[in-house]
Amino acid sequence: MQIAKVRGTVVSTHKEASLRGAKLLLLQYIDEEGRLLPKYEVAADQVGAGVEEWVLVTRGSAARQVEGNQTRPLDALVVAIIDTVSIDNRVLYSKKDQDRK
Amino acid sequence: MQIAKVRGTVVSTHKEASLRGAKLLLLQYIDEEGRLLPKYEVAADQVGAGVEEWVLVTRGSAARQVEGNQTRPLDALVVAIIDTVSIDNRVLYSKKDQDRK
Amino acid sequence: MQIAKVRGTVVSTHKEASLRGAKLLLLQYIDEEGRLLPKYEVAADQVGAGVEEWVLVTRGSAARQVEGNQTRPLDALVVAIIDTVSIDNRVLYSKKDQDRK
Amino acid sequence: MQIAKVRGTVVSTHKEASLRGAKLLLLQYIDEEGRLLPKYEVAADQVGAGVEEWVLVTRGSAARQVEGNQTRPLDALVVAIIDTVSIDNRVLYSKKDQDRK
Amino acid sequence: MQIAKVRGTVVSTHKEASLRGAKLLLLQYIDEEGRLLPKYEVAADQVGAGVEEWVLVTRGSAARQVEGNQTRPLDALVVAIIDTVSIDNRVLYSKKDQDRK
Repeated sequence: MQIAKVRGTVVSTHKEASLRGAKLLLLQYIDEEGRLLPKYEVAADQVGAGVEEWVLVTRGSAARQVEGNQTRPLDALVVAIIDTVSIDNRVLYSKKDQDRK
Repeated sequence: MQIAKVRGTVVSTHKEASLRGAKLLLLQYIDEEGRLLPKYEVAADQVGAGVEEWVLVTRGSAARQVEGNQTRPLDALVVAIIDTVSIDNRVLYSKKDQDRK
Repeated sequence: MQIAKVRGTVVSTHKEASLRGAKLLLLQYIDEEGRLLPKYEVAADQVGAGVEEWVLVTRGSAARQVEGNQTRPLDALVVAIIDTVSIDNRVLYSKKDQDRK
Repeated sequence: MQIAKVRGTVVSTHKEASLRGAKLLLLQYIDEEGRLLPKYEVAADQVGAGVEEWVLVTRGSAARQVEGNQTRPLDALVVAIIDTVSIDNRVLYSKKDQDRK
Repeated sequence: MQIAKVRGTVVSTHKEASLRGAKLLLLQYIDEEGRLLPKYEVAADQVGAGVEEWVLVTRGSAARQVEGNQTRPLDALVVAIIDTVSIDNRVLYSKKDQDRK
């Protein structure tokens, strides 16, 4: 999975019928220090993620492994809101600290 | 999924039999500001998208998750015509504004 | 799918048994103006494509969606010989013109 | 598969229900000399890998081919802790040497 | 599929149980002239390939389409030892010539 930050939403009324009801988030990939990378993904949201939150996005057929998505033409899915990212026992990101700001 | 702009069409008479009847669009990927990237995709059209429209393209086995495509050798499919793209509560793209131009 | 030009062939006698009889083409990806990119693919041929022709190549599990390939370990397949590529209502490539040269 | 080094962990309480119990490692890809590349992956751990160890990561639907993961929305999985990497009959990496340091 | 050169091996005793018995080769991708690219893959070997040989590697779910691999968490497999690569009717690589050296 990749780490990404929720940046916004994509809305479409004219779409494949099976996508009705799917909330589509615009994600921007970030590097391990949280710097925004010039790479985007539009993913369905499985966990109610909000703007600015760090999330885990799964891609490919994995996006269809959850109840309700099995036959949707999805190739990317937000599967987790990240609490902490730790590297070498150092906390790199903590949602709690972020929320306080 | 990725955001792309419909640029044109690809026509082939000599092709795999199961692809008959599939409309093939030439898409160009765009960045979050709508700038054209030097990256193309030929995708089957599921939603009747027209030239210049912003669309969502799904790739991989997801392209075969819709009625009629299950056994076609497709790895890319246009699944939505985009109405709006919003980042940080700012509308970045609106089809309505675009159509007025 | 991606647009590529047929450049040559790859021959192997010592290979996975199920690949016997599969013709393997060496493809070179091209950009939208037909310029050769430094990126290659070896793909099975489903349509009898010849050297110099522009073709559509499908990748991933899509390559196994045609009769006879279902259980072959293929991740790339030529599925169409391109007649025309049009961008913004301008014909960018026409096989007919190419064949006259 | 790709060679990567375990750098840390990613923790999430708010996630897709089927991911409960999956340990998520933050991996950093390395080149053949063990130099860290600027490319990360968050992968489920199948083998009890620890920080600093070199591991093999498999991606895509392969990540769901092990007992317990079949219906989890995973696209990356640590499947082996590497003992040795040899190139041209020269040992490039040996876990035993590494552990002594 | 991609063309790669066998460079070495990866050994692991602590791995996913289903991978026991799978020989893991370290491959380095090469360009059409046989120049080594800075890109590696660890792939299971299906054909008994040896160091320095040019091989075809298939990726993704294709790696599991052969007897014995169906439920292994593999995303890359060597499926052929290459005899010749020809571009524009010129032989670019011939295993026979290579073996004489």
